Amino acid sequence: MFDVFAKECPSRQVFAHVTGRWGALVMGRLSTDPHRFSEIRRSIEGISDRMLAQTLRDLVDDGLVVRIDSGTNPPHTVYHLTEQGAVVAEAVRALVETVQSTMPTLPAH
Amino acid sequence: MFDVFAKECPSRQVFAHVTGRWGALVMGRLSTDPHRFSEIRRSIEGISDRMLAQTLRDLVDDGLVVRIDSGTNPPHTVYHLTEQGAVVAEAVRALVETVQSTMPTLPAH
Repeated sequence: MFDVFAKECPSRQVFAHVTGRWGALVMGRLSTDPHRFSEIRRSIEGISDRMLAQTLRDLVDDGLVVRIDSGTNPPHTVYHLTEQGAVVAEAVRALVETVQSTMPTLPAH
Repeated sequence: MFDVFAKECPSRQVFAHVTGRWGALVMGRLSTDPHRFSEIRRSIEGISDRMLAQTLRDLVDDGLVVRIDSGTNPPHTVYHLTEQGAVVAEAVRALVETVQSTMPTLPAH
């Protein structure tokens, strides 16, 4: 059994990557379409090259995201969700939509 | 329209609090039951008093969590989700379960 609340459980680290400061936004962005690095960076206001590179590296290491060559000329790399990544990203996307739709009912926002 | 990808959107901050390093675990823990501070701290391995206090303060400020006096003797404080917090926590709980159930299919975990 995996338990994200347990410090040493490997799921804790994956959970940290898909939530975390930037991971949830990157997963949310990739949930709609594969994107190039520069597209992701532009679409998430405030993220730095360094933080995006680190976030994508973690998600690739986890097996949630893959880098794929576009096959175009000139070539470029696009970031796709893996099959498992798509399942997780769908849950992240649901959380994004829940937060956004809850905002009008929150005090002082 | 609220947009978590926009840096200045107030939803971005709420989203950061419910994802974030500890926010998602605290919301996930509260999704089942109200808990005392010490119960939450014990149930999330690795969280410090200071980080838990800050995380709860942010969630209270957002209107997702409330502190309620237990009414018992001796009195103690329990942390409850608000109505809106319960909706958000349900989406966090779904993400927790999705990550945990995806783990066996990920490489190298």
